[in-house]
Amino acid sequence: MEMGRRSLVDERRAQIIEEAAKTIGRYGLEGATQERIAEDCGLSRSHIRHYVGNRDSLIEAVWDYVITPYVQAAEDFRDRADPTATLAEMIDYLFGPEMEHNDDDAVINALTTGAMKDASLRDRLYGTQVRIEEAMAQTLRKAAPDATLERATDVAYTLLSVAIGSSSLSALPFPASRRLAARRYAEILIDTFVQESGAVVST
Amino acid sequence: MEMGRRSLVDERRAQIIEEAAKTIGRYGLEGATQERIAEDCGLSRSHIRHYVGNRDSLIEAVWDYVITPYVQAAEDFRDRADPTATLAEMIDYLFGPEMEHNDDDAVINALTTGAMKDASLRDRLYGTQVRIEEAMAQTLRKAAPDATLERATDVAYTLLSVAIGSSSLSALPFPASRRLAARRYAEILIDTFVQESGAVVST
Repeated sequence: MEMGRRSLVDERRAQIIEEAAKTIGRYGLEGATQERIAEDCGLSRSHIRHYVGNRDSLIEAVWDYVITPYVQAAEDFRDRADPTATLAEMIDYLFGPEMEHNDDDAVINALTTGAMKDASLRDRLYGTQVRIEEAMAQTLRKAAPDATLERATDVAYTLLSVAIGSSSLSALPFPASRRLAARRYAEILIDTFVQESGAVVST
Repeated sequence: MEMGRRSLVDERRAQIIEEAAKTIGRYGLEGATQERIAEDCGLSRSHIRHYVGNRDSLIEAVWDYVITPYVQAAEDFRDRADPTATLAEMIDYLFGPEMEHNDDDAVINALTTGAMKDASLRDRLYGTQVRIEEAMAQTLRKAAPDATLERATDVAYTLLSVAIGSSSLSALPFPASRRLAARRYAEILIDTFVQESGAVVST
């Protein structure tokens, strides 16, 4: 019984967060007022407060909801066994369908813009992006154990930049060869990093 | 007299476009209704129609307003004399203060998201991004005249991706060394392109 109630709460909470993400993606952080989110959810503001908490909690929950798949992907790569094969799969991911322009981007962009004026939100967003960057740096170092953390992190940040920029441009009908060129550049960047930084560990 | 009236029209038009850009940046393309834009301008909807035209015209004018400085920068580089020095200056620009995350980004992101559902807007946005890409490719080829247009365009797209991604991440407090690393890798990409593609032309 307690279990049942708990999962209903979780389900309602998940519905609100999903709906709030859509609202923020469409109307920006400022336009996604508590009233509009409540209306889009078909719930009262007090129900939303009951299930998710105040506005800051809701915004943080929306951020976690949209960004968690990307963090998990980065940490999954970090935790895999074969470092060289994993780097190839990480590249597939960074330039694959999951990273093409999609509805998440509007939410991520709206929250990133909102973070310019909100130090606490900015810390939250930064903390997550650093987790992604760190997981990528660790994945890189598993294939090049002699590399410094500094250099691996620089390469991770640069890979992330190319992938994010190419994802953003993928909203427009550029020929597929362009994105493949950006991907090839990312591969060269990784190959150079591995070659410069010591032997590849094979498992 | 005619001149005076003309410039008043231009001025009013410019004010409306600037205000509409702010509104779209804050509330997204959907949230920036004609009513809200009119309210933010302190004008009636019919005044807006008089000065800028219908909603599509207004949105296109906002896009031109935010993106033109970037097109002009790319075409200025293309039209300069010393190709090698110009590439260095293009890199300065791509990773300099003009490309840091700013209020334009919210507008560009909102319009890019809107373009996913609006083929005519997408064509407009794509046409502009292609102008930037082409101008960059031509700048690259002036420093490496034997390079194919295809290869120069691939490099231009990749540079644009790194710069856009790094611009997007610059909303968050990453250490300055990260952006410098992305910039250094962009320099290596250009150097490799120039070395592979033939002699540098000096003027």
